[in-house]
Amino acid sequence: MKILMVGTGGVGEAAAVIASKRDPKGDWLELMVLSDYSLERAQSVSERIADARFPAEKVNARNKDEVKALVQKYQVDLLFNACDPSFNENLFDVAFECGVHYTDMALSLSVPHPTDPYHKTNVMMGDYQFAKHEDWEKRGLLALVGIGMDPGAVNVFARFAQKHYFDEIDEISIKDGGNLSAEGYDITFGFSIWTTIDECLNPPFKWEKDKGIYTVEPFSEPEKFTFPDGIGEQELVNVEHEEMVMLPRFMGDVAKRMSFKYGLGADFITMLKNLRALRLDDKLSKVRGTEFSPRDVVGMVAPSPVEVADKLKGKCCVGTLVTGLKDGKERKVFLYQTSDNEELMERIGCGCVVGQTAYNPVMAFELLAKGIWQGKGVLGPECFDPDPYIELADEYDFYMGMMEMESEYKKLMDKQALLSTVKILSK
Amino acid sequence: MKILMVGTGGVGEAAAVIASKRDPKGDWLELMVLSDYSLERAQSVSERIADARFPAEKVNARNKDEVKALVQKYQVDLLFNACDPSFNENLFDVAFECGVHYTDMALSLSVPHPTDPYHKTNVMMGDYQFAKHEDWEKRGLLALVGIGMDPGAVNVFARFAQKHYFDEIDEISIKDGGNLSAEGYDITFGFSIWTTIDECLNPPFKWEKDKGIYTVEPFSEPEKFTFPDGIGEQELVNVEHEEMVMLPRFMGDVAKRMSFKYGLGADFITMLKNLRALRLDDKLSKVRGTEFSPRDVVGMVAPSPVEVADKLKGKCCVGTLVTGLKDGKERKVFLYQTSDNEELMERIGCGCVVGQTAYNPVMAFELLAKGIWQGKGVLGPECFDPDPYIELADEYDFYMGMMEMESEYKKLMDKQALLSTVKILSK
Repeated sequence: MKILMVGTGGVGEAAAVIASKRDPKGDWLELMVLSDYSLERAQSVSERIADARFPAEKVNARNKDEVKALVQKYQVDLLFNACDPSFNENLFDVAFECGVHYTDMALSLSVPHPTDPYHKTNVMMGDYQFAKHEDWEKRGLLALVGIGMDPGAVNVFARFAQKHYFDEIDEISIKDGGNLSAEGYDITFGFSIWTTIDECLNPPFKWEKDKGIYTVEPFSEPEKFTFPDGIGEQELVNVEHEEMVMLPRFMGDVAKRMSFKYGLGADFITMLKNLRALRLDDKLSKVRGTEFSPRDVVGMVAPSPVEVADKLKGKCCVGTLVTGLKDGKERKVFLYQTSDNEELMERIGCGCVVGQTAYNPVMAFELLAKGIWQGKGVLGPECFDPDPYIELADEYDFYMGMMEMESEYKKLMDKQALLSTVKILSK
Repeated sequence: MKILMVGTGGVGEAAAVIASKRDPKGDWLELMVLSDYSLERAQSVSERIADARFPAEKVNARNKDEVKALVQKYQVDLLFNACDPSFNENLFDVAFECGVHYTDMALSLSVPHPTDPYHKTNVMMGDYQFAKHEDWEKRGLLALVGIGMDPGAVNVFARFAQKHYFDEIDEISIKDGGNLSAEGYDITFGFSIWTTIDECLNPPFKWEKDKGIYTVEPFSEPEKFTFPDGIGEQELVNVEHEEMVMLPRFMGDVAKRMSFKYGLGADFITMLKNLRALRLDDKLSKVRGTEFSPRDVVGMVAPSPVEVADKLKGKCCVGTLVTGLKDGKERKVFLYQTSDNEELMERIGCGCVVGQTAYNPVMAFELLAKGIWQGKGVLGPECFDPDPYIELADEYDFYMGMMEMESEYKKLMDKQALLSTVKILSK
């Protein structure tokens, strides 16, 4: 498989490192072109990897012709969009126009409802992309959208849970938390600043079978959730996230409710509210006749995820909590990925938030390259068989676990755990 | 097996009900004499059971001759002490003098150190009984002491965990909690009032390998612990309990630390402190020349466990938390029993605290009667093979479970749970 990566930021770099290490002999990865607006950045990533299959190129991702020229030059099979999602529409269209497959890790952006943003939807995440599903399908092309950690692995978890652990699902709720902190920094972004501001200040989506997708207030419905791996209890709130348009689309037939909850922390929420109050979250502003993006300015001056990555300590944990019925008993299961920042820094030289994201597109590329995952149209990770993905994660040494949470079903399992100890040994 | 039960209070009644239901044809239980200071009480229990093997008798448990007369009359094999532990020394000696086996559910009482009660031990729980171990052993008699819920099942749990789940044990900590409450009662006792006052106001024991058994302040070292089965997080404190003399004696070779923690609740602790401040906890007082026991008075007037039993709602959960190493990984396991008051009321007509206790001596009687458990001397439940006990609990439908708690080991198990799902299905 020949891939053109557009955008060699934190996630792009991590994905390149992971791919190069995973497939040193090129069994399935023939080429991964590293292109970025900054040639210097692309080159430094390329030099770090020191693998001839990873050449550096300069590209302006907003300029279709420049991207197309690279697709042609390298005759790639797939365009891997590793930019922030404001580039999605352009890159998604370029891939289609060039007749190559496409992958991203976040969906095209929403536009809140002009008069009732916290109840009604308007343009939703991914609308632009999903609207073109049939066109892609007809041309036999695949746009695998939202294959990062969340969205991405959590969508696979949802499908896996539905396939194996439940007869009936009540709720699918994504939980994103962690305990990262960096000495000397009061506020840190583990991930794209631009995207973080966007997803946190936009009206969050939720879904119910009878109501469909609807919006609520940002940071609403706080709840306590206890993450594993030493992270402990956190307060989670509603935040806009892709899963709330993807899972209803592809798994709306198997669940009653869906939600996405983020453990931002009170300080982080206050900071975001202040950005909004100061209009520093605006995507476009006009001051003395000059147009500029205050949000881009924040993204440029604030401590970047790359800058703080090697100073962060702690872990991040993202997973899918599914509640429902199994064998007539109420069951609650949490499928999760947990990463330790220092451990990932040592292993792939990237922080855990970007690293946690980057494993997923690479694993998907391998499954697609090997023909284990096949599809056409604009699809999410939940459209594919989750089993080979879970198995592959183990080969990548990308930790994934399943926790049985307190429930009627677990009480029965606790009993069986005790009894099976005796019975296994007495056999 | 022929048994003389002395004391047909809450636990005695529950034990008789359980035994009668378990062995309706007398496969192992030939006779269980129900004797009590109140013949009326013994008769009412006997009538409720309506089983000819359960005759009622009057007895003063402080009068050796009366007890001996019953042992002779019925030619029993075992004296089952179901009184509060102030009767232990007398009944324990009677059994020995009669040459019959003996069982109780709490050990002989402690006498705090006269000058430094919260650091040094003096007479410890069970001292009186354990001192006679060799005499019992020589005569080929068994005194199985402390076979209730806690002590009792939790000691079995400790042995079970050591046998199956650990290569090395750091700490064994008993946890006793629940969420019982009764409408219209500000304070309720789920268990013998006399014993509750005693164990709560005496200096708690702890044990460390290097220090041996030592005492600390009552209600000290509060810690949070989350119980399963919907009970949730509780604050637990040190309380005097038999396990802290039994487990060091019998399992001191396999652990580094041991503790007993009780979830009493702040209101209950205040009430106990008030009793002490008012000297109402005194076992013996002399007022105007008349000796009496203020604590007995409290026991007589306060709402008794039997009175509130059918008004209580909620659950109690008691278990053994063991931490240590397995396969080089830090592991933490909670073996527990959980009972719902309303469910037990319906099943055996007894509250969950007494019911939870009563199952244990009956199961032990069955194992002893069938020769599955054998022993001589003064022994605790941890001296026997725990496996048949755990299996038998399932036959009694007496819930016991094993929870893997957050640990390095569990993280690995969560991963294996996910992978085994795929691998089992792909076979």
